[in-house]
Amino acid sequence: MYPDERRILMTPGPVVFSIDTLRYMLSTVYEHTSLDFALIYGEAVRKFRRVVGARDGVPTFIIPGSGTLAMEASLVNTVKPGSRVLVVSHGYFGDRWARIASSNGYDVKVLEAEPGDIVGEDVIVGELSKSRYEAILVNHVETSTGVRADIEGLARVARKFDSLLVVDGVSSVAAEPLECSNWGVDVVLTASQKALETPPGLALISMCTEKALEAYGEASKNVKGFYLRLSEWEKVMRAYEEGRISYYATPATHLVVALERSLEKILREGLENRVKRHAALAKTLRAGLEAMGLKIVARGEEIAANTVTAAYTPPGVNPSELRSKMTTRNVIIAMPLHPALRDKSFRIGHMGSVNANDIISTIAALERTLKTLGAEIELGSGLKAAQETLVNLNL
Amino acid sequence: MYPDERRILMTPGPVVFSIDTLRYMLSTVYEHTSLDFALIYGEAVRKFRRVVGARDGVPTFIIPGSGTLAMEASLVNTVKPGSRVLVVSHGYFGDRWARIASSNGYDVKVLEAEPGDIVGEDVIVGELSKSRYEAILVNHVETSTGVRADIEGLARVARKFDSLLVVDGVSSVAAEPLECSNWGVDVVLTASQKALETPPGLALISMCTEKALEAYGEASKNVKGFYLRLSEWEKVMRAYEEGRISYYATPATHLVVALERSLEKILREGLENRVKRHAALAKTLRAGLEAMGLKIVARGEEIAANTVTAAYTPPGVNPSELRSKMTTRNVIIAMPLHPALRDKSFRIGHMGSVNANDIISTIAALERTLKTLGAEIELGSGLKAAQETLVNLNL
Amino acid sequence: MYPDERRILMTPGPVVFSIDTLRYMLSTVYEHTSLDFALIYGEAVRKFRRVVGARDGVPTFIIPGSGTLAMEASLVNTVKPGSRVLVVSHGYFGDRWARIASSNGYDVKVLEAEPGDIVGEDVIVGELSKSRYEAILVNHVETSTGVRADIEGLARVARKFDSLLVVDGVSSVAAEPLECSNWGVDVVLTASQKALETPPGLALISMCTEKALEAYGEASKNVKGFYLRLSEWEKVMRAYEEGRISYYATPATHLVVALERSLEKILREGLENRVKRHAALAKTLRAGLEAMGLKIVARGEEIAANTVTAAYTPPGVNPSELRSKMTTRNVIIAMPLHPALRDKSFRIGHMGSVNANDIISTIAALERTLKTLGAEIELGSGLKAAQETLVNLNL
Amino acid sequence: MYPDERRILMTPGPVVFSIDTLRYMLSTVYEHTSLDFALIYGEAVRKFRRVVGARDGVPTFIIPGSGTLAMEASLVNTVKPGSRVLVVSHGYFGDRWARIASSNGYDVKVLEAEPGDIVGEDVIVGELSKSRYEAILVNHVETSTGVRADIEGLARVARKFDSLLVVDGVSSVAAEPLECSNWGVDVVLTASQKALETPPGLALISMCTEKALEAYGEASKNVKGFYLRLSEWEKVMRAYEEGRISYYATPATHLVVALERSLEKILREGLENRVKRHAALAKTLRAGLEAMGLKIVARGEEIAANTVTAAYTPPGVNPSELRSKMTTRNVIIAMPLHPALRDKSFRIGHMGSVNANDIISTIAALERTLKTLGAEIELGSGLKAAQETLVNLNL
Repeated sequence: MYPDERRILMTPGPVVFSIDTLRYMLSTVYEHTSLDFALIYGEAVRKFRRVVGARDGVPTFIIPGSGTLAMEASLVNTVKPGSRVLVVSHGYFGDRWARIASSNGYDVKVLEAEPGDIVGEDVIVGELSKSRYEAILVNHVETSTGVRADIEGLARVARKFDSLLVVDGVSSVAAEPLECSNWGVDVVLTASQKALETPPGLALISMCTEKALEAYGEASKNVKGFYLRLSEWEKVMRAYEEGRISYYATPATHLVVALERSLEKILREGLENRVKRHAALAKTLRAGLEAMGLKIVARGEEIAANTVTAAYTPPGVNPSELRSKMTTRNVIIAMPLHPALRDKSFRIGHMGSVNANDIISTIAALERTLKTLGAEIELGSGLKAAQETLVNLNL
Repeated sequence: MYPDERRILMTPGPVVFSIDTLRYMLSTVYEHTSLDFALIYGEAVRKFRRVVGARDGVPTFIIPGSGTLAMEASLVNTVKPGSRVLVVSHGYFGDRWARIASSNGYDVKVLEAEPGDIVGEDVIVGELSKSRYEAILVNHVETSTGVRADIEGLARVARKFDSLLVVDGVSSVAAEPLECSNWGVDVVLTASQKALETPPGLALISMCTEKALEAYGEASKNVKGFYLRLSEWEKVMRAYEEGRISYYATPATHLVVALERSLEKILREGLENRVKRHAALAKTLRAGLEAMGLKIVARGEEIAANTVTAAYTPPGVNPSELRSKMTTRNVIIAMPLHPALRDKSFRIGHMGSVNANDIISTIAALERTLKTLGAEIELGSGLKAAQETLVNLNL
Repeated sequence: MYPDERRILMTPGPVVFSIDTLRYMLSTVYEHTSLDFALIYGEAVRKFRRVVGARDGVPTFIIPGSGTLAMEASLVNTVKPGSRVLVVSHGYFGDRWARIASSNGYDVKVLEAEPGDIVGEDVIVGELSKSRYEAILVNHVETSTGVRADIEGLARVARKFDSLLVVDGVSSVAAEPLECSNWGVDVVLTASQKALETPPGLALISMCTEKALEAYGEASKNVKGFYLRLSEWEKVMRAYEEGRISYYATPATHLVVALERSLEKILREGLENRVKRHAALAKTLRAGLEAMGLKIVARGEEIAANTVTAAYTPPGVNPSELRSKMTTRNVIIAMPLHPALRDKSFRIGHMGSVNANDIISTIAALERTLKTLGAEIELGSGLKAAQETLVNLNL
Repeated sequence: MYPDERRILMTPGPVVFSIDTLRYMLSTVYEHTSLDFALIYGEAVRKFRRVVGARDGVPTFIIPGSGTLAMEASLVNTVKPGSRVLVVSHGYFGDRWARIASSNGYDVKVLEAEPGDIVGEDVIVGELSKSRYEAILVNHVETSTGVRADIEGLARVARKFDSLLVVDGVSSVAAEPLECSNWGVDVVLTASQKALETPPGLALISMCTEKALEAYGEASKNVKGFYLRLSEWEKVMRAYEEGRISYYATPATHLVVALERSLEKILREGLENRVKRHAALAKTLRAGLEAMGLKIVARGEEIAANTVTAAYTPPGVNPSELRSKMTTRNVIIAMPLHPALRDKSFRIGHMGSVNANDIISTIAALERTLKTLGAEIELGSGLKAAQETLVNLNL
């Protein structure tokens, strides 16, 4: 029942991570009302802020839940229900923004891009010029197509039109450039199992700007329900950060410890180095895939994400079969999620502890698997291109 | 920063647990869309049903979140907002039921007991006779006072008055007798970090009766918001149970694996043995505390919980100082949560892997600590009583 | 097949240890010819010297094997075969010195004490006055009877008679006072699984004095065989200490890492604190055993070891049955090893991470078990005495 | 100080292994005189016999120490000191046989092959025809050059000349074909950290034939010294196998548990599958190295080992620099050990959990590193050949 530990997880979360960040989960004594744990939690909060570039002391949350919960909590705690929100959607998770907003009673307008493309700034500006939107909801990286939005640009636009910018950084935080406070990105959220390299189960959110603080200050007071009330969680977060104990709902102690260890590792690597590594490996992967004749879903290099790549399968190759055969080669790839890409594409996650060996192994396994499945692939073609890219990048 | 691993966690969650259930979290390859993981998840779902006595195939949920989230999700997915609900409250977590219900727009009536007591069946019947309640919300064990409700009796009452019985089993499941389907307990929920002996971060819910299925079938369709929609999670749960892959929000893979291992261990011990062990150790602890002159908060043996004991501190002893000095003796106890018990009581959790050595160590550390803090304690008095209880119980 | 993880190992090695020192064994990348590993190894060597009080830079060895191998290697590398050696034996492991020496062709004279006693200094001086001995072999703590030799005194005697003093510190290092270089103890050896709190599999040896260096310099050149040639291992040890790579036979990488972590923890606790803790807990245990009517094997408090206690079973109680019933109570005690104590005594180890809770749990389990086995034991009697001792010691 | 956990250990021991076999080392309760541990130890002994093809019940040993200790113990317990022994040496570890034998007082004759070659059967027969040899000492795989001896053939020769055949299986057991009892290989030994995929620290030995039993029966009685007396260890081994407790020197509990888990995994894979996997990956590696223009040290495919490959560095490339640069690419390779290959070759280990991804990653990192170091390497050339080999092998 237990999977082979030598496999490489080339999925967009859970990701390739190292035992380093897991080791400290093996403890029987983490207790959420102990000082020891409060100190660890406080460290995690502070380090997470540094990773997203949020300034000191802003409300920051690490709570038990998935990235989806982080999306929902971010929205309902900063934007009054009934407000008009603009979803800039680049695929499945953009549409998830829309579903979350609709199901919470917001008035939702969706701007949609073709699969593999992003919505142009002109289109967004056009829409904002037409009507007033309380908030803009967007995914930094759209995990279903592997494209990256221009968040820095969007932040300028949002400021101009006085809309709150809420960014889902689930597949971007710690792997794509992001300085939320400097850029004026109001709210950033993510999940633990992506480039933060921690097992899934933690939702992370940070308010980053004055505007966010105001919006949160107002909206969070009126949140319906109990678990999603960030204003209550905030007391606990502040307490932990000050080395005091507080309680709202039991935190996921072991995951918080793993997260703190991982954030420490991330900051030791250095954010700039880390982003550079992810960018270089993403470029290498794309070079390899294209050289073996595959078409990348992302429309161009400038919008291709550092963290996840979607590519079309060659004619005659079924994605499920591809995944299943890749698994026997100890490389786990992901299936398409975007409705328009079903049955004709696959996805590769490349974030966290990912290194050149993982990229090379993945390209090699793909070459052999596609060949065996009857595709016209020249063995070594993808690898050669990947090797050349790596050498040019000094990797 | 890391706590001493030789400490004993005598708190009501996280609890005393063994490394056995944690070891398998140390893996880099759990992936929520893999067959391996689906099989593990399916096993966890099936085993959890056996632990609460739910019949095969009922909707059962294991989702990322805390016990509080399980309470909220259980309620909003089975009872229409606006409905009248009766909260039978025995303390802090009873009041939490009320807060959760109010904040979700229910019309809440609370029946409250004195701290240490439970609400009498006659009072409940009286209230139900007066007005119609869609649902009764109760905690099997009230973690803040250490009392246990008569859930089997309440189920009979609820059936008679056609109210849905929603039971928070957070401090009871796997340590107190419970056969939810047989008893007619409609909905049961709990959290991972209690007698299920798994790190915190999982909310668990099971529908147990026909009545629950109907209520859930209706209410879950209209749940507002996204994350708490159990009807969507149900598809994922069913898929896992059938060995198929599905996705709604990313599950907490590592915690699910630990849970599955722990459920296996629990069923291997046997539910009857396990409940008996908890009952015997709880009795031993109470005997020890009383013999050293401490007063138990629970009004009588028949309502004293198997899993958590609250006791009054002797005159002149401050609970925080007691906790802090106990910690230097490697025994972690919990502070009072109930407003009426603040500053004059403390709590001891005794569930999970707890054994006689833990109880003895706790009593011994309490004797020494209280003595040192100036209380009139005869060293050995609590221990002698505990030893006699254990011998009588063949432990 | 796997033992219950909540058991307490009250045996004289493996001992009560904490997960802290084991966590880092979970790695797939320790490699004995890598710089990373060399640095860890070097640290372990340096820290081990501090723990035994050996001066900087003396030849110190950490090699794969048991404590017995450490005894044999120490002897054959410092004393020329055929030489006369005086064994000061206080029991089973004293006799082991004699067997090791005999089997290696030394001319062995054994001075033996009654079980529970140590050989008087006058007797040793008497023997040394009569004949010349190249070396004196002794165990700091005799694990089979729980007595401690006066090593500081013996060192003075040995110097006076110009004999090399080789001390087996297997049950003493890191728990009994020892400053080998200052005291003039020439050679000290131990094993990883005792008060060093590391899984078994490492033999540790340090030369401590000028005299040892000379003896080693001469004897080690002529050691027969391959694996036990410390002069060859010395090159590897020096290399590791200088951050260089060298190879003689593959070191036990994972155990060395665990050892380094444990030595760090030991030095952080402080040697003086650590010895004091062990002494206090040993005293507490003896007080408890005596109060419940058991007779300690060690003749008097002044020679009773900090690390292991042997006691006589009450009439009618069979040691194996006692051990087996104690195991069901999750406390593992040890059987007698000394021929004269067979079938009428048992042993309790109390070293490493041992704390007051372990001692209390052990006394409590003993009371209940002995009572159940028909011995005349007053429940609580041992515990009361132990509690009083602990309070007097501020524990 | 701690190495990056994402590295791949392509060294000939410690090897690529999976967390699966390490997880169970994280326990505080393994105790060598407990029944639980005896059962695990007994299982390890029985499973090890199956892995080397030794028949049931023969004396088999798993003791704390390195492979070198296993060599020495095997020799001195089966061949009377002073006897003539013939060492068939293919390199560094063949010469180690000679050193071990000489240092233990045997009369040693060495037949030596050119580096990369093995000694021809005719040469061995010639020597045996000239003089009587009590034993033949040989390494199944010579770790310093990557050649494999024809052990099945040698066994026939040894039987014909009535010499005892003692085989060092350190780099072969569980990766090269071996049926010691069927083939008439008298004694087989190995170490834990090679294809047995367990951390280093265990020496393993099995007697396999009637002849071995006789030789051992006689020689072991007269072994000098203490630790290496297999006749004493045998009592302990038998006890463990029968689920009884016995003691000679403390076994390396945690490593034994890891070994048992690994042996279970090995037998589940199946020995035939396992050998096939190793052979296929070795072939792939050699194809890759040769295609990129490197020369393999092993003289021909038929004697090239499944487990380790030595290759010459291209002109101008320094092995240490190669290793160091490869390490920055997260692939750890090994330096030359054979004096004749110093400064002009390197070694790659490929055993244990090794898979095609490891081989591909290694070839890719080599291509890039050699290119960067100025060697004339066409990027992709080695990979292409490796891919073609893998596809032909259906991998």
